[in-house]
Amino acid sequence: MGIAMRTVAVALPAIALLAGCAQTGGINVKEVGSYHIGGEPVTLKGLPTKKMVYSPGSPPVTLNPNGDFVAGQMYTRYTILENPRASVPMLMWHGGGLSGTTYETKPDGKPGWEMDFLRDGWSVYVSDAVERGRASWARYPEIFQGEPVFRTKKEAWELFRIGKTYASDPKSRQAIPGTLFPIADFDQFTKQSIPRWATNDERTQRAYDQYVQQACPCVIVVHSQGGNFALTSALKYPDKVKAVVLVEPSGSPDPDKTDLAPLRNVPMLWVWGDYIQDYPFWKSIKERQERFRAALNQAGGQGDLLDLPAKGIHGNSHMIMMDTNSRQISGLIQDWLKTQGLVR
Amino acid sequence: MGIAMRTVAVALPAIALLAGCAQTGGINVKEVGSYHIGGEPVTLKGLPTKKMVYSPGSPPVTLNPNGDFVAGQMYTRYTILENPRASVPMLMWHGGGLSGTTYETKPDGKPGWEMDFLRDGWSVYVSDAVERGRASWARYPEIFQGEPVFRTKKEAWELFRIGKTYASDPKSRQAIPGTLFPIADFDQFTKQSIPRWATNDERTQRAYDQYVQQACPCVIVVHSQGGNFALTSALKYPDKVKAVVLVEPSGSPDPDKTDLAPLRNVPMLWVWGDYIQDYPFWKSIKERQERFRAALNQAGGQGDLLDLPAKGIHGNSHMIMMDTNSRQISGLIQDWLKTQGLVR
Repeated sequence: MGIAMRTVAVALPAIALLAGCAQTGGINVKEVGSYHIGGEPVTLKGLPTKKMVYSPGSPPVTLNPNGDFVAGQMYTRYTILENPRASVPMLMWHGGGLSGTTYETKPDGKPGWEMDFLRDGWSVYVSDAVERGRASWARYPEIFQGEPVFRTKKEAWELFRIGKTYASDPKSRQAIPGTLFPIADFDQFTKQSIPRWATNDERTQRAYDQYVQQACPCVIVVHSQGGNFALTSALKYPDKVKAVVLVEPSGSPDPDKTDLAPLRNVPMLWVWGDYIQDYPFWKSIKERQERFRAALNQAGGQGDLLDLPAKGIHGNSHMIMMDTNSRQISGLIQDWLKTQGLVR
Repeated sequence: MGIAMRTVAVALPAIALLAGCAQTGGINVKEVGSYHIGGEPVTLKGLPTKKMVYSPGSPPVTLNPNGDFVAGQMYTRYTILENPRASVPMLMWHGGGLSGTTYETKPDGKPGWEMDFLRDGWSVYVSDAVERGRASWARYPEIFQGEPVFRTKKEAWELFRIGKTYASDPKSRQAIPGTLFPIADFDQFTKQSIPRWATNDERTQRAYDQYVQQACPCVIVVHSQGGNFALTSALKYPDKVKAVVLVEPSGSPDPDKTDLAPLRNVPMLWVWGDYIQDYPFWKSIKERQERFRAALNQAGGQGDLLDLPAKGIHGNSHMIMMDTNSRQISGLIQDWLKTQGLVR
């Protein structure tokens, strides 16, 4: 849980500006808290009752699963700075099969991008999308359609470009030579996995749209599966979204069927890690995103590119915020946000 | 998200002692982050493969649900103060069908006990037990036994002593006269509900025990279903647990079958809300807890009682930390912790 020396060094100028806390090196926090957004009332009927004991030593209770519920809400946790140097808060949106922990921590136990950007002067909101983490999930198939999907360690190892071939025995796993993912902590990383549905995109978009209306104006930093939700919300509320940083986004609205003119004043930065050309799946995703970025620029918008290998930064996995150089990359994102005039 | 005037007033002495941040009224935070604890490797075999699209616009993937997973881990989020006035951190453990949001927020949008105790000089850890929230959950029946249970609004309304009879239409709900639960925000509160299993107590205890070994020495504040887990961990690691505050705990080890001598140096405070005598379920729970408390005192321990109605504080529900007087009650808990010499 200690902070890497590099982090402290990079954060010093930020700290120097945090009125009152400079001499102790902390960040000056006005308020922490959380809240749920959206969700719709649902009523279940006709399910059988059951008896259960809620906790050892407590009397049994007859449980009637029928009744009123709320479903489709999402969750956000906020840390508001007393003296932010950014003009708006930062919303951090996670990817598929994951939750807000993506930004809170690294599998090596070091704090994540949330702490980096708090040090860099941002009030930060870290959310869990519908069905994930503290957002909670709903009974299926009665409310959520279909089944949840649980990511295997093999899928995480191979899909996230950590290694070509997974093995159950950590010692037998072949990592990509030069990877910056902390492979010794891979099993710890997999504890962050959260079951997902393939049928909740509409519910999820609805909640994200309400979230943007509630928590913005803001900057959105989004990862992987979240990309499509963030771009869709930005298209609906371009006045609320001051910038979008897309970290290896996996989807987007179809640029050939979408008027991107509303995004003219929403600067965007695409961030890509290494080894993408070796993975047909990622190659095709990046090509689709590059088509979207080109269309955005053609429509008079600003779609910038931070292609890390092209900048000479090699070894990043799909989980860039987990990699050993995560602070370097959050610093490059901070630099770009500065050029957009969104943070001092 | 604003802070109630009462909160600010009560918190002022705390702020005055927070070196560096006094003039701005914030809290001086050294680090925020999170991590997962425990969990065991699990392997699934023989399940059919399926095709799915992870997000709109991304190519379909053939999914093999068989393979290696981790299951039974728990999650904690920490906010470490630069200058805590408490000698150890505070761990906040939630109750049944809920997650750490219990302590983060109130349904009226005001910050919860976590913020209160941060202002009172505690570094605070807010966890999600196994199967809840960001701890994630595992496939059933293959890994978790049995089915998840979803709490209805009716159960929350009646079990938590908010009102005698629930109605779907908020305007038709009969709240207990004089309740301090913010009933206008009851539907918002139900968004915090998280599905639970009745079959995971062993896994949950195992994770809590590891959590105590990792994060303590500490004080544990525990609610409802969490009571039995906290008392069991304290019995195993009495040197690690410096005090336990039990807020309407629903279960405990059997005092007639348990040697409570190890708890001799672990002061405990039981906190009870109002209307308990009107609910046979709660009456019997409180009687069992009082038997445990008496046995603890008999064994040479310190089992103190904060019976709010007996102190002239009326109207508290089972969700004391959600009630309109939540800051008053966290203040009374802080006073007790001061008398134990655990915080300045």
